[in-house]
Amino acid sequence: MELPKKVTINEVILRDGIQLEEKVLSVEEKQELVHYLLDARATSLEFGSFVHPKAVPQMANSGELYDLIKNLDALNLVALIPNLKGAESAASHGVKRVNFVFSASNTHNLQNVRQSTEQSLERLRTIKEFCAKEEIKLDVSIATSFGCPFEGEVPVHRVKEIVANLTELDANIITFADTTGMANPKQVYDFVRTMRQEFPEQSFNLHFHNTRGMGLSNILAGMEAGITSFDASLGGLGGCPFAPGATGNVCTEDVVHMLHNMGIETGIDLDKLIEASKRLKELIGHDLSSYVLKAGKSDRKYSVPAEA
Amino acid sequence: MELPKKVTINEVILRDGIQLEEKVLSVEEKQELVHYLLDARATSLEFGSFVHPKAVPQMANSGELYDLIKNLDALNLVALIPNLKGAESAASHGVKRVNFVFSASNTHNLQNVRQSTEQSLERLRTIKEFCAKEEIKLDVSIATSFGCPFEGEVPVHRVKEIVANLTELDANIITFADTTGMANPKQVYDFVRTMRQEFPEQSFNLHFHNTRGMGLSNILAGMEAGITSFDASLGGLGGCPFAPGATGNVCTEDVVHMLHNMGIETGIDLDKLIEASKRLKELIGHDLSSYVLKAGKSDRKYSVPAEA
Repeated sequence: MELPKKVTINEVILRDGIQLEEKVLSVEEKQELVHYLLDARATSLEFGSFVHPKAVPQMANSGELYDLIKNLDALNLVALIPNLKGAESAASHGVKRVNFVFSASNTHNLQNVRQSTEQSLERLRTIKEFCAKEEIKLDVSIATSFGCPFEGEVPVHRVKEIVANLTELDANIITFADTTGMANPKQVYDFVRTMRQEFPEQSFNLHFHNTRGMGLSNILAGMEAGITSFDASLGGLGGCPFAPGATGNVCTEDVVHMLHNMGIETGIDLDKLIEASKRLKELIGHDLSSYVLKAGKSDRKYSVPAEA
Repeated sequence: MELPKKVTINEVILRDGIQLEEKVLSVEEKQELVHYLLDARATSLEFGSFVHPKAVPQMANSGELYDLIKNLDALNLVALIPNLKGAESAASHGVKRVNFVFSASNTHNLQNVRQSTEQSLERLRTIKEFCAKEEIKLDVSIATSFGCPFEGEVPVHRVKEIVANLTELDANIITFADTTGMANPKQVYDFVRTMRQEFPEQSFNLHFHNTRGMGLSNILAGMEAGITSFDASLGGLGGCPFAPGATGNVCTEDVVHMLHNMGIETGIDLDKLIEASKRLKELIGHDLSSYVLKAGKSDRKYSVPAEA
């Protein structure tokens, strides 16, 4: 079993994580969570999204949040953008790195960002020019890379064509997102091997949802296929508002716990991460889909009960 | 990624699955679940346990249940036994296959079956003789093989010594049980490779709990290391009454869903298995930790919503 020595975890709690939550977090509450994450030595954070506030009310204060946290050098801050307008809003706050998202599935892309996949790819050229001018790093996320809740199977050659387009555009990192938790480990392994063979110079990141419980297995398969960068959400929160059946992202503390137990470094302080998750639970006001938060770490020891 | 073509799933809902449940299932309710499992083409079932009824009240009607289901030829029926008395009770009902359980960890064995690991191994000789005389197949389960909630780490050489003892006794199948969900996929892979190298003639089965969410990843790692037989519990119920922090077994429908999506056969009808899980939820009276029961299978398709 070939595994990496070190893996980067990109925390998405403040973007994908909370975007379906009913309780809208204030900018102060988000800032507090950022400091919990910093304490836990998180290094990469998708802090929000520059989308229309009516589409995702939870994201409306993303610019305001950035103004408060932009000087935290330890954190690599990324904002999701769905279009040029999003890139412009991000730029107006001085954001240095954005993640343009669109879907491999045309039907999901029409639902999610109101344009066809081809239109998204076309518009990406303008966005790329804008970002180059503004010296903003541009990542790209391909939603429904492993399947679409409307269309079903998404052919690998379709995703390959999209990636070929993106590498021409010199995308920084390309994320393959399993938007509604349809991927299985064998599929992930074969998919990633194909992509790495076809595009050996390109950096890839994987984004899994735990909808069918396969999130950690998919991360394992991704690592075995050579990936060392994964998205995860504190407390396992998350889900796409425009993908029916979408549920939580793979849970950061569960991912980090598994990796550390396997001897794979993340640089994260797991105990402090669990503290962050406890605070998140208070702020969001309901139980989280985190195993480690409930059960404690594997090395938790119990006393032998006294005789009855 | 080397994977098997076919895997055997041993259903443990009527033993490990329900033994922590407050609501004691009647023999008729258990019989109904057996028929649901038969409909789903399950082939192997640990149907109960011959332990003292005061220790695990849920198991008190195991003999009575066996009397009702013993002629179901399609199901390979196994009963757990903790001692010779259990083997004798099983024999009195005509049980043809038993699974003797004890722990690699001495502290857990004292809590679980009130004897040291050495005593269990000694007594196993008498049980083996008894079973041979009665023509009962004898499987053996080694609890806390991957870690103990009291002692912490359980050294692999300790488990290896135990297995060496068991192979002398000609155990049918040896199960390595991760009683409180402490195992991680790297550990499972290395552990299984070691055991298969040391004991190439011995059949092994793996038993995982999903306490830290690693159940499916551990099954993936087990398959990669060459194992083709796994325990699982319908609805993800389960837990050891004498192991603090124990939670549900890895969930059968989630396991079968993952395997089928990976192109690995189980012989099980997943749709009917989900029906069995729905019925279990009604009988037990609370939510189950099953992802597939909640989300549906990965190939579930949604209609595009009408314009608002």
